[in-house]
Amino acid sequence: MPSSDQLETPELLLRKTQSSHWYVEWMDAFSAHFHAVKKAIAAKTTPFQQVEIYETPKFGRLLVLDGDPQSSAFDEDIYHEALVHPALVTHPNPKNVLILGGGEGATLREVLRHSKVEKAVMVDIDGEVVDLCRKELPSYSKGAFEDRRTQLVIDDANKFLKDTSIRFDVVISDLTLPYPDTPSEGLVTEAFFGLIKNKMTPDAVFAMQASRTERGMNALFIHNIGVLKKIWKIVRPYHAFIPSFYSDWGYILASDKCDPIKLVPETVDQRLSAFSSSLHYYDGLLHPAMFTLPKELRC
Amino acid sequence: MPSSDQLETPELLLRKTQSSHWYVEWMDAFSAHFHAVKKAIAAKTTPFQQVEIYETPKFGRLLVLDGDPQSSAFDEDIYHEALVHPALVTHPNPKNVLILGGGEGATLREVLRHSKVEKAVMVDIDGEVVDLCRKELPSYSKGAFEDRRTQLVIDDANKFLKDTSIRFDVVISDLTLPYPDTPSEGLVTEAFFGLIKNKMTPDAVFAMQASRTERGMNALFIHNIGVLKKIWKIVRPYHAFIPSFYSDWGYILASDKCDPIKLVPETVDQRLSAFSSSLHYYDGLLHPAMFTLPKELRC
Amino acid sequence: MPSSDQLETPELLLRKTQSSHWYVEWMDAFSAHFHAVKKAIAAKTTPFQQVEIYETPKFGRLLVLDGDPQSSAFDEDIYHEALVHPALVTHPNPKNVLILGGGEGATLREVLRHSKVEKAVMVDIDGEVVDLCRKELPSYSKGAFEDRRTQLVIDDANKFLKDTSIRFDVVISDLTLPYPDTPSEGLVTEAFFGLIKNKMTPDAVFAMQASRTERGMNALFIHNIGVLKKIWKIVRPYHAFIPSFYSDWGYILASDKCDPIKLVPETVDQRLSAFSSSLHYYDGLLHPAMFTLPKELRC
Amino acid sequence: MPSSDQLETPELLLRKTQSSHWYVEWMDAFSAHFHAVKKAIAAKTTPFQQVEIYETPKFGRLLVLDGDPQSSAFDEDIYHEALVHPALVTHPNPKNVLILGGGEGATLREVLRHSKVEKAVMVDIDGEVVDLCRKELPSYSKGAFEDRRTQLVIDDANKFLKDTSIRFDVVISDLTLPYPDTPSEGLVTEAFFGLIKNKMTPDAVFAMQASRTERGMNALFIHNIGVLKKIWKIVRPYHAFIPSFYSDWGYILASDKCDPIKLVPETVDQRLSAFSSSLHYYDGLLHPAMFTLPKELRC
Repeated sequence: MPSSDQLETPELLLRKTQSSHWYVEWMDAFSAHFHAVKKAIAAKTTPFQQVEIYETPKFGRLLVLDGDPQSSAFDEDIYHEALVHPALVTHPNPKNVLILGGGEGATLREVLRHSKVEKAVMVDIDGEVVDLCRKELPSYSKGAFEDRRTQLVIDDANKFLKDTSIRFDVVISDLTLPYPDTPSEGLVTEAFFGLIKNKMTPDAVFAMQASRTERGMNALFIHNIGVLKKIWKIVRPYHAFIPSFYSDWGYILASDKCDPIKLVPETVDQRLSAFSSSLHYYDGLLHPAMFTLPKELRC
Repeated sequence: MPSSDQLETPELLLRKTQSSHWYVEWMDAFSAHFHAVKKAIAAKTTPFQQVEIYETPKFGRLLVLDGDPQSSAFDEDIYHEALVHPALVTHPNPKNVLILGGGEGATLREVLRHSKVEKAVMVDIDGEVVDLCRKELPSYSKGAFEDRRTQLVIDDANKFLKDTSIRFDVVISDLTLPYPDTPSEGLVTEAFFGLIKNKMTPDAVFAMQASRTERGMNALFIHNIGVLKKIWKIVRPYHAFIPSFYSDWGYILASDKCDPIKLVPETVDQRLSAFSSSLHYYDGLLHPAMFTLPKELRC
Repeated sequence: MPSSDQLETPELLLRKTQSSHWYVEWMDAFSAHFHAVKKAIAAKTTPFQQVEIYETPKFGRLLVLDGDPQSSAFDEDIYHEALVHPALVTHPNPKNVLILGGGEGATLREVLRHSKVEKAVMVDIDGEVVDLCRKELPSYSKGAFEDRRTQLVIDDANKFLKDTSIRFDVVISDLTLPYPDTPSEGLVTEAFFGLIKNKMTPDAVFAMQASRTERGMNALFIHNIGVLKKIWKIVRPYHAFIPSFYSDWGYILASDKCDPIKLVPETVDQRLSAFSSSLHYYDGLLHPAMFTLPKELRC
Repeated sequence: MPSSDQLETPELLLRKTQSSHWYVEWMDAFSAHFHAVKKAIAAKTTPFQQVEIYETPKFGRLLVLDGDPQSSAFDEDIYHEALVHPALVTHPNPKNVLILGGGEGATLREVLRHSKVEKAVMVDIDGEVVDLCRKELPSYSKGAFEDRRTQLVIDDANKFLKDTSIRFDVVISDLTLPYPDTPSEGLVTEAFFGLIKNKMTPDAVFAMQASRTERGMNALFIHNIGVLKKIWKIVRPYHAFIPSFYSDWGYILASDKCDPIKLVPETVDQRLSAFSSSLHYYDGLLHPAMFTLPKELRC
């Protein structure tokens, strides 16, 4: 048995408790969020991007693409409820739904909650990300890929949109941010949104995740609002705070006919009624608050 | 003139561009926000706490007490508008206002915008913090300390409340978080809130900053709601996203008579009308949205 | 093709170049080394410890046990040459060699360079670490595990030492640091070193890695010197700077007969002659310098 | 008195113990040393560079110029003993000594220990750094600026060298690293070293701090050795580990006559005898070891 003498050296007493493994989200050169990592679950370079999945003590599994956090097990419900349901309750009869991106399968999961949905086509460029998420983040898709209404297409969004003969009632864009040299570069332009609109029914609803809304970080959000206004008559930015992003995240809903700010809470709740009890974040009461931006952000 | 030969060594080519000076807000052992620092403006230990002011490239001057960020020049307007105006528009005739804490002077500045205010008493335990903020953060108080309606008291909040003979129409608590071994330890209890209520008029309004609202970080916020409900009949939690806190910050308004959620936007805007154009964040339209929490947070 | 408009938002221009994945070696609560990680190669929890292998841009593959760096592909040659060769040249005829720990297989590789070695027994408690290193760090062992002189024993060092009937000419301890709750806890005591000596020939040489030598971090090094002096007559601390440890690492050689500081450079070089050209760090000229510690460290 | 209820919220239990203030030495984009800061003592921008002094828990006061650590109270004795004494014992009769840079005054302090020194001229470009060090780091200069043998010149080294009529026996360069856009840019060229030699006596000794010696980080060190070899016949690189730099730091001694590796320990100790007891790091025994570089570094 060891004698106690070796326990008295400072190095041993200083046995460190801090995490030795970190994922860092750099906002810019001057600010960063540090996330301790319990374990690196996956790390690979696909033909399109770098994919990492980290197990974190605070946010559970965290999906990272090209260094940017996409969603965490801890709060992906907030992110995906906010992305999907406002569009699907704003359209009175969403039968055909298109999802762009959304490799985790959680956007699909939320879309399939709506019983009016007859067909949900999900188009993601990166089949390896989809496969990895199905394997390592099964709670995200929760069987959505096996739903008979689901059609999974591994393809470039531009190409799919050009080729498809379907006309969609709702299109939901869950693409990554359009950084240079990433698969989403160029996917926030008039040309691209016009292509989407071409494949939508006349009263269809479009919704997209649109980056941060907060002061000093919202140029892309404002840019997106401006571009959408060139394409659709009704453009309604909205927001939801995502804890693991440390950000009040922006979304935009656009349509030529349907206006989300005309929906009263009771209508929202009624359209959600079949599954409203399983939602954590969104409901009729929150709906108008989500579409109310602070004074300085209104445009 | 130097010849070019010495420029070719890797070390010189790698001349680093990253910041070498950082302020880190640790949320817990597993997560932290890193803020680059341009310059440490002040660093001192007062009898009550450790005070630092950093000049940051992203958020301007940042006041830090005992390691916790208090407010930044970049967005203190959001934080202070959200703290002050809901209470002052909810009370129909706020003549006497008490501010607890708020050493920066910005809470006072916002209170003094309301022309009905006849007396604003600010009680802060730490005169050195107040002096430092007046000197190094003059844009925060903007002359508020010189306003003839202002009475600045450097004292313990408990002691002031026991001794004062004034009865206040509005009390605003801008105290630091009640960590052990800080001046605010124990200032979120029934006893303390009861003491405040004793010095308020019957239809008075109380508002406080109440820590984070976000999932996983909101136990103190929920605790505070519960304690206030033991003291006041109407307790209304509300929130505002503060970019430099990376958090959807919580506030609570409490009263026995006045209910903020009964105010329509037009009333809010009318009560703000004398200075509404100078506000950046808050207005009548935002008022109901601020008082609407996500489904999972309602209680 | 994307129009250029979306490229002008600050977020896209600020596309971050900093690494988002870091391994951090905490020295204590006040100092840490940050290592960017290209990819997490392996991460597992064995019955004995937590094992990670990181691919780093600066030091190549880095083996980490319980948060502590063990060796990097970039400079493990320095660490292992310094650990092994002084002992093996100090003993005139090292036939039977015992290695304690050294899961990477690089200590074994260096021992096997000496043609006088007839048997090299390596005892490591953690077979999973050994397997992982053979698979993911093959350049470390370079076939050493397949050498006919090698005997690999997966066992507790204490137990092996009690049971073995072999008497060793050289014993090399490459155990991890004796932190509480790690496999090496208690392995720097008189009892343990006495157990080792019992299984050594009378003129045998013992060498160990012995933690940091630098001022303020060397209490364990000094402790080890003191304990060894209770067991052996000749105790010679020495050192080698290891870049990836950012430390002037300590080693200790002990014997009752053989004294390394009596070896002249020529003898060292002659004993290394069969393979001296393949060494990068150690040679006869460096030998006396390694055994010369700064004035303040001599004892 | 506060009831205990508020102490149970996780946020309060998680009251963080980690430092919130850090100085970071970036080695390159992939590696960095983090130093906790107790207090920022000074931060200013002079006409020549950015100066910071941090009080750290681990290394005491740390002087930082343009983001690079210069020396710490914890181990500046090692750095300065290694820089000064090899040169001053190598020259048999050092009467006139020139110091380039060395704003802290510690190089001067070490030079003045030698009783043969009659005149010590220190030339530093940045008077504000010198003043700040005298005020905030008084233990570094320990009265050296007041010594009657000292002549302090605030000037550009190039200009001083061109103008001076003195011929020096020893010149010690303690300039910062020659990064672009810093005061030392261009000060490691043949032209500059030639200018120095012009103002030295025929058997004079030159010594300089010469950046890191470690593998992968030593291109500047090797560059410097090469340049000095064009100017002097005898060029001897040497090294000393500096804990707060986490580096085996390089120095170079050059002369046409005096060779440090010909000095036996006894001569070194004799030349140091007047003050050897006050040295912590350097002595005759260490002298030859300092001048012995690992095999891979010899050239």
